[in-house]
Amino acid sequence: MWNCPYSNDSFPTYAEEVPTSSTSSSSSGSGSADGGGSPSTAMLSAAAAENRVVLVGGSIPERCDGRLYNTCFVYGRDGSLLGRHRKVHLFDIDIPGKITFKESLTLTPGEGLTVVDTEVGRLGIGICYDIRFPEMAQLYAARGVQLIVYPGAFNMTTGPAHWELLQKARAVDNQLFVATCSPARSEGPGYIAWGHSTAVGPFAEILGTTDEKPGIVYCEMDFGQLAERRANMPLRHQKRGDLYALMDLTR
Amino acid sequence: MWNCPYSNDSFPTYAEEVPTSSTSSSSSGSGSADGGGSPSTAMLSAAAAENRVVLVGGSIPERCDGRLYNTCFVYGRDGSLLGRHRKVHLFDIDIPGKITFKESLTLTPGEGLTVVDTEVGRLGIGICYDIRFPEMAQLYAARGVQLIVYPGAFNMTTGPAHWELLQKARAVDNQLFVATCSPARSEGPGYIAWGHSTAVGPFAEILGTTDEKPGIVYCEMDFGQLAERRANMPLRHQKRGDLYALMDLTR
Repeated sequence: MWNCPYSNDSFPTYAEEVPTSSTSSSSSGSGSADGGGSPSTAMLSAAAAENRVVLVGGSIPERCDGRLYNTCFVYGRDGSLLGRHRKVHLFDIDIPGKITFKESLTLTPGEGLTVVDTEVGRLGIGICYDIRFPEMAQLYAARGVQLIVYPGAFNMTTGPAHWELLQKARAVDNQLFVATCSPARSEGPGYIAWGHSTAVGPFAEILGTTDEKPGIVYCEMDFGQLAERRANMPLRHQKRGDLYALMDLTR
Repeated sequence: MWNCPYSNDSFPTYAEEVPTSSTSSSSSGSGSADGGGSPSTAMLSAAAAENRVVLVGGSIPERCDGRLYNTCFVYGRDGSLLGRHRKVHLFDIDIPGKITFKESLTLTPGEGLTVVDTEVGRLGIGICYDIRFPEMAQLYAARGVQLIVYPGAFNMTTGPAHWELLQKARAVDNQLFVATCSPARSEGPGYIAWGHSTAVGPFAEILGTTDEKPGIVYCEMDFGQLAERRANMPLRHQKRGDLYALMDLTR
């Protein structure tokens, strides 16, 4: 989460309330989108509108009806709120001597998957630990998602072991693009992020990546490649629907 | 397939018939297990019995009721046939200029998953292209498999891109061990294998691997680690059964 330290103590303090209505600005031109509702989302909305870009805005603690969520907001080129993903799989792990964290002490899990149709394509959103659950990516692929974006902050144990691996696995298994955005590493007390924001193509090829320092990954993603990759290796049609079936229980 | 060239032309020529009854030898002591039914399976059965090892015998073309399968036979320490996996997902791909192959021209897909209880643990078997289908590994994990063994021969395009990645992905997503066995590389006409037999642990750690030349990978696998890994990071219990469910349609 980019607007607060990553600790259960901080989530309530830094949480922001983001009503649905007030954050959906009209396309009234650059800079005029207020993004409403909260300081962080107003900044995101304005940044999207001023730069005329689709913006997947990392995640912040969101307060709603007395609960806290780890939430990612997605904005269109006019600064309007297009989607809101509340982290579905909370990060509760305990690797003794390495990393212990229990998000569920303060956070409530999201209620569903988040597919967002934007000016640049159909996006699926996951947050950090969500990437460990292949079913989620499989359902996004089934719903026609072209790019899954996972804002996340893996740590110094799971980062080197799994961060890139999981992105490549989600991409190649589902033949879609994957992008991750991590905070840069800040040594010191508390949670230390691995960094390494990355973009991966549907053949598991790294399109761009950075290291642990502040940086920007630029790359091109041609969603037209998906049809070609899927024609060459038609995994989706080769699944054995007579042996197994992944049910999407949210539709 | 280790007893024949990997080509649709060769599969009918080298296929062997392996009746269920005759290959299940009694535990009548070292060397006496005939493995029956076919030259290749007799050799496998004898090798298992003589060395008192559990043996996952790669794969050969199997003929049964006029059909051909890509089949892996598993033997116990007494040489008895414990399991037979017929490749479930046939390798039909067409990457122009790189690799084109269509197993379904000659082979029939297997009818189910294959879990084998052996003296060394519960194994799940997949063959080559089967590794591309995460659902299969997920179902094996749900059935208590500790080690998935994938005999396989990735090629010079998919090998460097995906061979190790897929093994690590299946291992870490399902928190189990994965082992692969590939033929060594033989340059020349026809299908060229990537090689690189490998063993992977449940944290995606490489336990042992080899290169493209003939070789043996020795490693220890402590299945007791699985409980610890799963306690540290309880992925199975953190799945969102209210949002998605993978159905095992074969039970």
